[in-house]
Amino acid sequence: MIQPNIPDSTLPRVVIVGGGFGGVNLAKALKHVPVQVVLLDRNNYHLFQPLLYQVSTAGLEPDSIAFPLRGIFRKQKNLVFRMAEVTGLRTSENILETGIGEIHYDYLVFATGSNTNFFGNKGIEDNAIGMKSLIEAVQIRNYVVKQFEESLLLQNPEDIKPKLNFVMVGGGPTGVELAGAFAELRKYIMPKDYPTIPQSLMNVYLIEAGPKLLASFSETTSQKTLEALQDLGVRVLTNTGVKEYDGKTVTLSTGEMIQTQSLLWSAGVKGIPVKGIPPDIILPNGRIIVNELNQVKSLANVYAIGDLAQMTNDPRFPKGYPMVAQVAIQQGKNLAHNLRQSLNNKPMKGFTYKDLGSMATIGRNRAVAEIAGIRMSGYPAWVVWMVVHLMSLLGFRNKLVVFINWFYRYFTYERGTRIIIKRGAANIVKLRQSIN
Amino acid sequence: MIQPNIPDSTLPRVVIVGGGFGGVNLAKALKHVPVQVVLLDRNNYHLFQPLLYQVSTAGLEPDSIAFPLRGIFRKQKNLVFRMAEVTGLRTSENILETGIGEIHYDYLVFATGSNTNFFGNKGIEDNAIGMKSLIEAVQIRNYVVKQFEESLLLQNPEDIKPKLNFVMVGGGPTGVELAGAFAELRKYIMPKDYPTIPQSLMNVYLIEAGPKLLASFSETTSQKTLEALQDLGVRVLTNTGVKEYDGKTVTLSTGEMIQTQSLLWSAGVKGIPVKGIPPDIILPNGRIIVNELNQVKSLANVYAIGDLAQMTNDPRFPKGYPMVAQVAIQQGKNLAHNLRQSLNNKPMKGFTYKDLGSMATIGRNRAVAEIAGIRMSGYPAWVVWMVVHLMSLLGFRNKLVVFINWFYRYFTYERGTRIIIKRGAANIVKLRQSIN
Repeated sequence: MIQPNIPDSTLPRVVIVGGGFGGVNLAKALKHVPVQVVLLDRNNYHLFQPLLYQVSTAGLEPDSIAFPLRGIFRKQKNLVFRMAEVTGLRTSENILETGIGEIHYDYLVFATGSNTNFFGNKGIEDNAIGMKSLIEAVQIRNYVVKQFEESLLLQNPEDIKPKLNFVMVGGGPTGVELAGAFAELRKYIMPKDYPTIPQSLMNVYLIEAGPKLLASFSETTSQKTLEALQDLGVRVLTNTGVKEYDGKTVTLSTGEMIQTQSLLWSAGVKGIPVKGIPPDIILPNGRIIVNELNQVKSLANVYAIGDLAQMTNDPRFPKGYPMVAQVAIQQGKNLAHNLRQSLNNKPMKGFTYKDLGSMATIGRNRAVAEIAGIRMSGYPAWVVWMVVHLMSLLGFRNKLVVFINWFYRYFTYERGTRIIIKRGAANIVKLRQSIN
Repeated sequence: MIQPNIPDSTLPRVVIVGGGFGGVNLAKALKHVPVQVVLLDRNNYHLFQPLLYQVSTAGLEPDSIAFPLRGIFRKQKNLVFRMAEVTGLRTSENILETGIGEIHYDYLVFATGSNTNFFGNKGIEDNAIGMKSLIEAVQIRNYVVKQFEESLLLQNPEDIKPKLNFVMVGGGPTGVELAGAFAELRKYIMPKDYPTIPQSLMNVYLIEAGPKLLASFSETTSQKTLEALQDLGVRVLTNTGVKEYDGKTVTLSTGEMIQTQSLLWSAGVKGIPVKGIPPDIILPNGRIIVNELNQVKSLANVYAIGDLAQMTNDPRFPKGYPMVAQVAIQQGKNLAHNLRQSLNNKPMKGFTYKDLGSMATIGRNRAVAEIAGIRMSGYPAWVVWMVVHLMSLLGFRNKLVVFINWFYRYFTYERGTRIIIKRGAANIVKLRQSIN
């Protein structure tokens, strides 16, 4: 019989579901609070999602942007970590049901984040590729290299084009960064690794439904981003939606059709559904309604933070805060403060979002950033982008390995990780099944 | 219709099957020979197998020991690489049949290496884990972390033991290095990451059928290796064979039974069968009989080198040369020389093996080495082992990243890569299938 085997403690127990930016920052901030923290995640690592696109474009190794949760919390004595998935919730008994057994909580915090939103379009969902998990990023990398290898075996340009048309949907930071990275693959790697394939057969598209790229940025920055991408050879289509995709042809709202076997979808995210939450407080976008204290509506002692939480206390964000790392981090820290206040019978403090700015990289020497009202672009923004991301990475080893990869790439125009790791023998399939 | 699309050339064509140590060294040595080289491999990378065990024990990233074949040969103008698997051979027409179409050859070289040899024991083959491919190594890493995570959920020591008994079979360098790495995991990582699991519940066994470890080394070195492993807490059983394994219990030739869910098999290798080779020249161990010029018996213009080739021209090795990297490298270089001689109508030179020595690492600060008659052990051998392996790694980036990982590990006793990369959504399964 499997049991969570959580050590006994007389302290109030805070159960945190999810080891992303919100969960990790909440857990860390509870280090000196007299509670017992139980952190659950379906994976055993914290993922630094902002650099995920570099894994999918062969710039970084998966492990460089993932950090074992046990490593992060090794010295935090009031915390236990378990790999587990939530299967249900009995709020009347303060019991969380999980795949590893039932866990009692005094405070329960959902920080399960978000997943790709295909907005109910089944054709797209079945055939497009999302960009939210480490395994997706690794598979994209494998898939792209495979498309090139297969293109070598074809003679008719009409057969090659669908393999080398790469279509990104969604003009937010992820789409922009992906499109930039693919354009650089075309510019620097393709002529070296596949000199016999005409470069004209590879095309990178970026499709955005709204009128401009990077919607949350200023007009100037959006315009600079557009120009930088076009300069790299990306075909940017704004005011354009995706109607259908069958794995071979994508049909746009303009009627245009593009033949592609690779549709990378970063046009939206939705809250990951949590089992046991009453359906009436889950919004159509999968987010859960919370008040300004991150308390889940109508459930006592249950909280939600980060992408999953829809909090509408700020008139600047009538539809809730943007689903970005900064909101999750700040809500995690604020909730830790509030739990401490609650234990001391002091009043909790409503959440206020401090926008630290946003940035996106477009490629070598190019990025855009808007920080504290200051707009930057080009080389200075690119340097700021690198420094901020390096500093934010957990762990010295990760920082060093990422830095070396970037440094190496900068001077050699090379990408290290273009290998396809395939599966083979039957016993490996067996192993894999036992891991899933 | 898929075609290999190999550029036209009037030069004689050398087709090399396999991008391991033999194939890569042969191809490189043909750089200035007036031939067209076609290199085929089922993967798109060269794998540095000697460090594979470090991937499986969370010491290194897969990409650190794999190098894209396109990168290696980018500047070699007389070579084309294709990802392909051999499906047949028509020697009467000089045609190699492959998954990407038929390829004409003037000289054909098989350098497909070896795979795990379970000696026909179906129970072991179905349930044990081999250690020959990158994906196997990654899966072992995932599997081991998963065993620890699951052990946390169990209360009864009798349920935990089978998860934390790790049994290596085969006392050659791979088995010794694996056992040492697992013992270090137990010594340095387990107390930090899983302090609540009693260390006594984890046991590392090394089973060897012969009378001593590292059979090809001197008696002194074998003894030192045994002592070093025992010192690390490894239970070494020599003169002991494995009779049966059902995935739960391994039965030894002594009658002893060990409960384990992890049997790592490195007790033997066999040549990977090549389709189209007449069965009568394939030995029971899967190797192909060649003469001292690496010519495959009874087939004109067909050669085999490395692990796959059984050459018995050296009385020191009546059963053929050992299946190690050095033999493959030297045979590849010698064959390149011979092909040049043949083109110039000059006599070919029979292969002679120059034993450069062997080494094995046992853990932190400990290794054994026998080079040019000089026996080393302990710290000096460990330094030599590191330098030799770093120098042998292809590519500056790989050298640097491996060095940093080792350096970091040395001072922190930490292992970077303990994350489990799981598979999830349906579209990823679809992607995977299209990659396989």
